[in-house]
Formats: sequence, C-alpha cells, structure tokens
Amino acid sequence: MTQLLMASPDADRLEEQHVRDEIQRYFVSRSQRAEKYGTEFSSLWETATRCVVGGKLLRPHLLLGAFNALIPTGQHGRLFQTAAVRIAAATEVLHYAFLLHDDVIDGDLFRRGRPNLIGALLTERGIQESPDHVSQRVSHNDRDLHWAKSSGMLMGNLLLSDTHQMFARESLPSSVRSGLLNLLDHTITESIVGEHLDVALGDGTSVPGLEPVLMMTRLKTATYTFEMPLKAAAILTGAPGEVEDAISEVARQLGSAFQFQDDLLSTFGEIAEHGKDAFSDLREGKETAIIAFARTTDQWKKIEPHFGDPQLNATGAMTIRKHLTDCGAESFVRSLVADQLHGARSILSAPDSPLPPELVTFLMRTMNKLEERSS
Amino acid sequence: MTQLLMASPDADRLEEQHVRDEIQRYFVSRSQRAEKYGTEFSSLWETATRCVVGGKLLRPHLLLGAFNALIPTGQHGRLFQTAAVRIAAATEVLHYAFLLHDDVIDGDLFRRGRPNLIGALLTERGIQESPDHVSQRVSHNDRDLHWAKSSGMLMGNLLLSDTHQMFARESLPSSVRSGLLNLLDHTITESIVGEHLDVALGDGTSVPGLEPVLMMTRLKTATYTFEMPLKAAAILTGAPGEVEDAISEVARQLGSAFQFQDDLLSTFGEIAEHGKDAFSDLREGKETAIIAFARTTDQWKKIEPHFGDPQLNATGAMTIRKHLTDCGAESFVRSLVADQLHGARSILSAPDSPLPPELVTFLMRTMNKLEERSS
Repeated sequence: MTQLLMASPDADRLEEQHVRDEIQRYFVSRSQRAEKYGTEFSSLWETATRCVVGGKLLRPHLLLGAFNALIPTGQHGRLFQTAAVRIAAATEVLHYAFLLHDDVIDGDLFRRGRPNLIGALLTERGIQESPDHVSQRVSHNDRDLHWAKSSGMLMGNLLLSDTHQMFARESLPSSVRSGLLNLLDHTITESIVGEHLDVALGDGTSVPGLEPVLMMTRLKTATYTFEMPLKAAAILTGAPGEVEDAISEVARQLGSAFQFQDDLLSTFGEIAEHGKDAFSDLREGKETAIIAFARTTDQWKKIEPHFGDPQLNATGAMTIRKHLTDCGAESFVRSLVADQLHGARSILSAPDSPLPPELVTFLMRTMNKLEERSS
Repeated sequence: MTQLLMASPDADRLEEQHVRDEIQRYFVSRSQRAEKYGTEFSSLWETATRCVVGGKLLRPHLLLGAFNALIPTGQHGRLFQTAAVRIAAATEVLHYAFLLHDDVIDGDLFRRGRPNLIGALLTERGIQESPDHVSQRVSHNDRDLHWAKSSGMLMGNLLLSDTHQMFARESLPSSVRSGLLNLLDHTITESIVGEHLDVALGDGTSVPGLEPVLMMTRLKTATYTFEMPLKAAAILTGAPGEVEDAISEVARQLGSAFQFQDDLLSTFGEIAEHGKDAFSDLREGKETAIIAFARTTDQWKKIEPHFGDPQLNATGAMTIRKHLTDCGAESFVRSLVADQLHGARSILSAPDSPLPPELVTFLMRTMNKLEERSS
C-alpha cells in the first residue's frame, strides 16, 4: 500500500524517509538509554526494535498525504511541517504499542510471518516455535512464557508513554498542542474500548452479533488508523472545524472497510501474502463480521464445533472457510466493504463538501488503492 | 501514614481533600464519557473506580508536603499551587495504573484485603473467590479470567495515558512543563525497568542475588513513590538544580527503606494489618531482599522446596517464616532499612546540604513516621 498512496513519488519518498529516520532515531536513543540499566533491558529494546519496526507506515502516509493536501487552504500553511513528520512517527509508535499489547492479549507468537516480540524472546531463551505446528504453541515453559508476555506488555507501556511524550513535547502554539492532545486522548480511549469489546466477544462475556462487531471494528481500527492521522493533519494545517468533522466521517468508513478487508484476507487470503499466523482468527475464535453473519445462518452448526478450537489444523480451517463462503458470510462482508467505500465516496463527492479538492483527490486515490489491496 | 505526614493538620487536611476531589472528578468524568460506548465499558469504569481509588495518598502527601516546604526558598513561590494539587492527583493515578498492571502480571485477585479489579470482575460474573482458599484460585473459567485480566491491563493503559494527559495539559511555563514531562518519562522508564527485573527474577530468567534485588527495589518503588513526588515539588516551586539532586539521593534511600519494610510486613506482619493476599509473596516466589539473603544461607535448602509453590498453605508459609527468621534474613533486611534511613539522615543533616531547613524538617518527620509504620 505504501507506494500506492503517493502523490508525487519523489517528495513522498523523501517524507517517508524522514519518518523512518525519526522512528529509527527514537529507537536508537531508547536502546542507548536502556544500557545504564544493564544488558537485559537494553537487549529487550534491541529485540523489540527488530520485531516491531517496519511495516507499511500507513498512518504516517495518511497524515503526511493529508497534510500536504490541506496546506493550500489551511491557516497555518506548511508552518508545522517538521512537527507533522514527528507526529507521523509518533502515530506509528502508538501502532507498535497496540500491536505489542494485542499479541499479549491474543497469546500470539507470530506477526507478519515471523516471530513477534514474545516469540523472539522465547527463541532467544532457546525455545523454538514453529508457526505451522499448533501443538508446539503450548510446549514452552510456563514461566518463560509469562516472562515473555510480561515483557511485551511492559514494552507496550513504554511505547504508549512515549507516544504521549512525543505529542506533548512538540513546540507548538497551545491551541494546536491541545488539539493534538485531545485527538490522542480520543484515539486511545476509542482504541481501548474497541479492544475491550474484542476481548469480551472473543471470551464470550459479551453477546455476539453484527452490531457489536461493527462497533468494535470502528473503535479498534478506524479511529487510530484513519481518523487519528487524517485529523492530526487537519489540526497541524489549521483546517476549519467542518473539515475536521467531514474527515472523521470519511475516516470511519475507510477504516471500517480496511478492517473488513483484513478479516477477509486473514480468513480467505493467501497466507504467504498476509504473513499472519495461519488461521489464527479462526483458532482464537475471533468475532469478526464474517463470523457474526455466519452465526445467523443454518451452516453455523457445522462451523461452531471447530470455531475457537486451539488445536484447529489446516484441514479443519479449510473446511470452515468453505462453510463461511457457502453460507454467504464472505460475500456479505465483501458487500460491507463496498458499502463503506461507497459511503465515503458519497461524502467526498457531495456538492456541498467542505473538503478542499486536493484532499478529496488524495482520499479518492487512497480509497482506490484500498480496494485493490491483497495484503 | 496519612495523618503522620502532616505539618499543620488543618491546612494538610484541606490539601488532602483537594487531591481527593481532583481524583474523584477525574474518575467521574471518565465514567460519564464511557457511557457513550455502552453499559459494559461504563460499568468497567465504575468497578475500576471502586477497586483502585482509596489508599493513603502517600505520593500526593509527599508532593504537597515538599511543595509547601520549598515555597519560601523557591523562585516560583506558591505560583503553581493549583497545578501542584493536580499533579499530586496525577501521581496517584499513575500509582493506580501500576497497581492494575502489577496485579495482571502477578495474577493476583486481591489487594488491600478485598478483591482487586480482576477479582471484582470475576465476582460480578458470578465467580466467587476467597482469599483464604488457595485451591479456588484456579477454579474459574479460563476465558473469564482472560477477559478480567485483559480488562485490568486495558484500564491500566487508560490510567497511564491519562497521567500523561494531566502532566501535559497543565498550563505552565514551558520550562516547568518540560521539567515535569522529563520527570514523568524518567519515572515511568525506571518503574518499568524495575518491574521487568522483578518479573525476570520471579520467573527465573534472571540470576537471583542481592544486587539485582536492591536495584529492582530502587527502580520499581523508590523512583515513582518518593523521587517523583519530591522532585515534582522542586520543579513546581523552582528550586535550584542542586536541591533536585539532593532530593533524588534522599528519595532513593527512603524509597528503598519503604519497600524493604513492605517486604518485611508482607512476610512477617499481621495479615489483618497489611491486607494483602496472605503469603502471596512466598506463594508467587517473589525475589525480595529477604529471599536473596536466605539463598546465601544453609537454611535455604529447607525453604527452597516450598518457595514459589502455588499451593502453599498457611501452615507451610508459617514454617518458611520461621526459617527466614532463623537464618538471619529478617534481621538482615531490618538492618537494610536502618542503613537506608541512616544514609538519608546523613544527607539531610550534612552541614553543606543544599536543602532548605523546612524541607529537612519535613523529610525528617516523614522518615520518623516511616520507621514506625505497621501497614
């Protein structure tokens, strides 16, 4: 998706490099500071850096793409461009914090096709894990796993704290800083409510259904992945309040479409492309929109006995996939994606839209690329 | 300890009330905001408020006591008194965040003699727990426990985020705000390094010994419970850098003494007074200074088979207590407390101490009360 969001490839590549440099600088300075507390803690930072840094920089791209599009009409122009790069890096650090905590909560040892922090820490202690052999998932020593998961939680806490530090320390007029702090507060609150709902649905303490799943999707993904970077751009360029409001609307639809696509890719996509632990959504009993629809059909009784089975193997998972397609759940969620994208396009192309044409162009292009993504 | 730190009881009671009001206001506004996300999330806030709010307000007392003592000599005088009350409340919110996360990591269901957030959530789901019956600790449904622990982790994340918001939003000159943000950054880093070391020692991934235990004690407790509030007072009153440095030295010694006392109370004190889960330190295999000393003695071979046994009952724990006393571990840690307090007194009474007499008086009184505490 990275290249696909680019407006002018050279300028964007330069900005992307600035964000990567900023993230790199942050992790290096953190690792160095950790050294005074002994090798164990500095080595934890090094392992964490290796495991979390990377990915597509989706949030920074959205922030900087929207920032550049809003410059011509915003009251601050490009005055806070350097701050925009640093805030873009901070949104990615927040993303890493959420990934670390998600893996702790889900008990996952893999992400993007390789060991996540927990998996890497276990490997360093000589405990080999393989993503293809489910039975090995519980073979490690309980104390080692407790230590590795606690380490992931604590690293997530540090990255969460540091995101606040990055937002709070930016040298900005107090109205801009306070706008960004409000946005961060709103973002973290909604992401945590969404994660809590996800956990409650997965653990069966919340009643499953399409409505809570749609709410969870918006809160857990759309807010921090789409609304936060796009609204940060509006705040940094000094866009009017009505632009911020319209951005929020579009961001929710785009963000929900993005998550539904993720669910489709995790369940029906090629494992080689999405790089996640194979069938982990089905094995963990994750309440996605796909499952919420399937629950309402007759085929659910064939799916239910295997759904959320920690020992689910590839053959069992392929059978579930087939049932999910046959019962109409796959095509239902594909239509949800189309609906959300259609809703977003309607807002963007409305004759009375307060959004400047440069931003409309950027968001339309983003959406087109989103529709085509396969990973 | 609360009353014991008071200088002028009426003024202190008033300040204490202001801090309590501030904390109350924060939790009420959070619960109200949570309502728009449905009853589940607002009810989580209510349960969390009931479980975490309370305690002795040790950190706010230290902050405000030091603030008042530093007013006569500080360059800001009482200019930032309102901010001091709000930052004092924020230090307590950070404390609650750490308690929530500690309980998640330790798997504890009780604190202060009653269910903690995890225990209360399980009780609300109809799963009764009793602190006296160890065997019931594993009797609940795994999914309910996962949900309750994840809820504790997510609530801790919110409180951690909100601490930053409180520090960052205070309307203060940029040098004061940046001083406070540095202090918060330093505090969270050291607390997390300390917690990580605690976990590594408990899980056996770090080599036990007195040196790592002393380091863990300083990082995990002294920094956030003593250094943070005392240094915040110095920053808010505009005390010179040499005062800040001397405060850090005294705070480390006081804080370590405080934690060693806690370890003594948890292991040898009356359960009714300290209110913790009976013998949880011994049952969880917590590496305290008591244990670090005992490991170096011949009696260790009698203690080791029972130390860290999840099924340890009261009779077994009483036997371990006796061995810990007989091997000299109890008196060794009592001498550590005395040494730390002696060290702190030496700094305070040094002829060339940069600390103003009002602060010396306040800290000497704090220390005297610390020596006498039984809970």
